[in-house]
Amino acid sequence: MREPNQPLKHIVLTSHPTGDQTPIDIQWGASDVAKRGPVVATPAGSGERNAIGAYSGSYAVYRALAVVAGSLDPLHKPDLTNTAPAMKMGPFPQWSDPQKIVSIDPWGHIVGASFANFIEDGVDVRPTIAITRARLSVPELVNPKPGDGHRYLKPDGTVLMESGEVNVTKIAIEPVWYLPGIAERFNTDEHALRRTLFEQTGGMFSELVTRPDLHVFLPPIGGITAYVFGEMEAITDPTKNLSCRVHDECNGSDVFGSDICTCRPYLVYGIEDAIVTAQQGGAGLIVYNRKEGRALGEVTKFLVYNARKRQTGGDTAENYFERTECVAGVQDMRFQELMPDVLNWFGITRIDRFISMSNMKYDAVTSQGIEIVERVPIPEDSIPPDAKVEMDAKKAAGYFTDGDVPTQTELQQKQGRGLEEY
Amino acid sequence: MREPNQPLKHIVLTSHPTGDQTPIDIQWGASDVAKRGPVVATPAGSGERNAIGAYSGSYAVYRALAVVAGSLDPLHKPDLTNTAPAMKMGPFPQWSDPQKIVSIDPWGHIVGASFANFIEDGVDVRPTIAITRARLSVPELVNPKPGDGHRYLKPDGTVLMESGEVNVTKIAIEPVWYLPGIAERFNTDEHALRRTLFEQTGGMFSELVTRPDLHVFLPPIGGITAYVFGEMEAITDPTKNLSCRVHDECNGSDVFGSDICTCRPYLVYGIEDAIVTAQQGGAGLIVYNRKEGRALGEVTKFLVYNARKRQTGGDTAENYFERTECVAGVQDMRFQELMPDVLNWFGITRIDRFISMSNMKYDAVTSQGIEIVERVPIPEDSIPPDAKVEMDAKKAAGYFTDGDVPTQTELQQKQGRGLEEY
Repeated sequence: MREPNQPLKHIVLTSHPTGDQTPIDIQWGASDVAKRGPVVATPAGSGERNAIGAYSGSYAVYRALAVVAGSLDPLHKPDLTNTAPAMKMGPFPQWSDPQKIVSIDPWGHIVGASFANFIEDGVDVRPTIAITRARLSVPELVNPKPGDGHRYLKPDGTVLMESGEVNVTKIAIEPVWYLPGIAERFNTDEHALRRTLFEQTGGMFSELVTRPDLHVFLPPIGGITAYVFGEMEAITDPTKNLSCRVHDECNGSDVFGSDICTCRPYLVYGIEDAIVTAQQGGAGLIVYNRKEGRALGEVTKFLVYNARKRQTGGDTAENYFERTECVAGVQDMRFQELMPDVLNWFGITRIDRFISMSNMKYDAVTSQGIEIVERVPIPEDSIPPDAKVEMDAKKAAGYFTDGDVPTQTELQQKQGRGLEEY
Repeated sequence: MREPNQPLKHIVLTSHPTGDQTPIDIQWGASDVAKRGPVVATPAGSGERNAIGAYSGSYAVYRALAVVAGSLDPLHKPDLTNTAPAMKMGPFPQWSDPQKIVSIDPWGHIVGASFANFIEDGVDVRPTIAITRARLSVPELVNPKPGDGHRYLKPDGTVLMESGEVNVTKIAIEPVWYLPGIAERFNTDEHALRRTLFEQTGGMFSELVTRPDLHVFLPPIGGITAYVFGEMEAITDPTKNLSCRVHDECNGSDVFGSDICTCRPYLVYGIEDAIVTAQQGGAGLIVYNRKEGRALGEVTKFLVYNARKRQTGGDTAENYFERTECVAGVQDMRFQELMPDVLNWFGITRIDRFISMSNMKYDAVTSQGIEIVERVPIPEDSIPPDAKVEMDAKKAAGYFTDGDVPTQTELQQKQGRGLEEY
C-alpha cells in the first residue's frame, strides 16, 4: 500500500467535463435500477466517479486520516460479502419518480446485487443505505416510572419482549443529492444552488461549479436512521395503521436528557406509539435526522441558550425564536423540504398517527401528497418544566396543539431557569 | 438581502496567497489570546478569512441552503449579546503550547470579549466553543431498576437533585485544526496531510493545496460535547479526584439502547461515576465525540453487523474485528491521537478514574503526559447479552480488563444473535 508520505504524483485541483472519458451514466428516477445506473463517489484521482463529494459523508475526512496515518490502503474497495439488507425493501413507485426522492439514493441498499457487473469490473460502488435488525433496550420502556407520562406497554413476545426490549429493523441512510431536484424543492435554479453551496461553505467542492455534467452530490453532512417497528409490509398496507415520528437530532436531550426541550420525551413517546401500533398489526416508524440544534449545530445552540437565559425579563416564550435569529440570522435551518424523501422511499402514502406538533413537518409531508390522518402532540405530563418556554413559543407561532394557545401575558412571563438557578 | 437567484458576480474557484492582502495573523500556541489572533472562517468571497473551511462544521451546508432558500442574508453576522460562557474556563498553560492542542481553538469560547476590536471593525469572528448550564434527567438515574447494574445514588441537592436530575456545565466544541500540529501527531508532513485530506474526500477544499500560507482548517465533521459534574475548579485541583469517560458516539445504543454494544451502559456508568466523584468534592467529566461507528459512519457499521451475523459459524468474538476490516479496510478510524486535546484544554494533568477499557484511548491520553491513576471498566452486570461478542473480542485484542481474558475456544463460540433470531 501507499506510504503516507508519498502522495499521488499529480494534483488535480478540480476536474472539468472531458470528451475522452464520459462518466458512467446516472438517469435519476429511471424506471429500474439498471437504467438508473450506479452512483460512484470514489476519491479523486480515479476517473470513474460520476458524483461530486465522497461516500460516508463527513467520515470521508477520517478516511483521509486513516490513509495519511498509513493504516488504510487508499485503493481499498469494500468486500460486501454478507452485508446485503436484512429485510426486503421495495421497490416502490416513488423510487422511479425523479421528483419524489431527490436527497437519498432509493437503490442505495442494493448496489451489491444491482451493480455486481460494475463491481466485478473494478468500479468502486458502495452502498449508501444499510438495513439490519436490532433489539433495543430503551430505559423508559424497560422500567417505566409511575406518573412520568409513560404508557404501560404489554409485552407480546414479538415486538415487545417480556424484558421490555423491543425488536426493530433499522436502516442507516447517507445523503445523496440530485442537484436539479434539490434546486426544484427550493424554487431556485441548479446553477444558483451549486454556487451558493460552494461559496457559503468556504469553497467546499469546486466541482459543484466546474462539473455541471455531474448532477449527483454526496454532501458531508449527517444522514438518517430509520427504525421500523412491526412488519415492514404493514407500512404500505392500506388496511393497516402507521404511526410515524420524524425526529431531528438533539444530542443534549436524546442522549443526556437535558430538560430544556422536549426532544427525548417526544422521541420516547413516538417509540411507545410505534410499538402499540405494531402490536395492533400496524407498523411504527421513527425517522432520526442528524440536524443538531435545528441544523445550526450545537455551538450556536448553546450560545442561544445563554442569550435566552440572560436576556432582560428572563427566558420567556415571547423571545424564544428571536434569540435564535439574533445569533444565527434565521430561526431554523432544518428545511423540512427534503425530509419527506425518506417517507417516499418507504412507499408511504398515508400516516395514520403523525407524532409531532411541527407545522413545518406537517406541511412538508402533506405537500408531497402523503396524507396525515391524525396529528398527535406529546402529552402534557411528558413535558419537562424548563421546556414550557419552547412549547408555549411554538404553540403561539402556530405549531399544532389540541390544547389552548398561550396568551400574550403568558408568553411574557419568565418560565425558564436563569443561568444562576442551576 | 440577496435574492436566492442572484449569486455573487464572480466565481473564485480557489484562492491563492497574494501580497496585496495578507490575512489576519494567527500565531498558534502564542502566550496570550491577543498574540494568537482570531480564527476567521467566513464564507468565501470575503477577503478577511485566515482559515480554510467554514464555521459550524457540516452545518455550513445547511447555512448554504438557508441562503439559497432566501431566508438567510449571506452577509449576516451573529449578534453575540449575552452568549458569553456561563462559567469561567482557564486559561491554562496548555492553551499556549502549540503541541498540546492542535484540533480545537483553546480561545474559541471567548472570541466575543477577546476580539471585540476586530468585531467592531466588521470582521466576522465567531465562537467555535460555547459553554452553558443544563439540568439532565437521565432515565437510568431518575428511575434505577433493581439488579440492572446501576448504582443507587444519594441526592445531595447540588449535583444530584431529589428528583434524580443532575446539574452540569456543558460545553460544545467545533473542530479547529492546526494543520502542522495535526501532521505532527500523525508523524507525517503537512504537505502530505493536506494532499491526502483533499484527495481522499473527493476534492473537498482545494485551498488545502493552494493556500499553504493558511495553516488552520475547520473540517466539516462533528465536534465534541463535554459535560462537567461538580465544580469546574475541581478538575485542575491536584487535591481533588477526577473521574473521566471519553465516549465516542454510538447513536444506536446512546439514544435507542441497541443491545449489540456496551456504549450507552458505559456512558451511563461514566455519568454515575462522575456524579459520585463530584459528590465527594471532586469533579466528573464526560467527553462525547461525534465519531459514529468508530468514525466509519453508520451505514458501514450496519453493513458490518449483517456480515458478522451471517458469517459461517455465526457472530463470534474471534471474527469481530476481521469483519470490519473486510468492509472498511481498517478496524477503527477514530484515531485517538487528537482526542487528548480537549483534556489539555481543561488543563487536566491527572485522571484518577478513567472509565474505559480502550488501550487506544489510554495510550493516547498517557502519551500526552496526562497521568491515569486507575482504569475502570464497565461492571459485568451492565453488559447486554448480545454485546459479549464485542467485549470478548476487545479483551482478546489487548483492551484493559480486571477479569479473565477469554480463551481461543471461547472466542470461537457463537455468542451473538443471528439475523433471524430477532
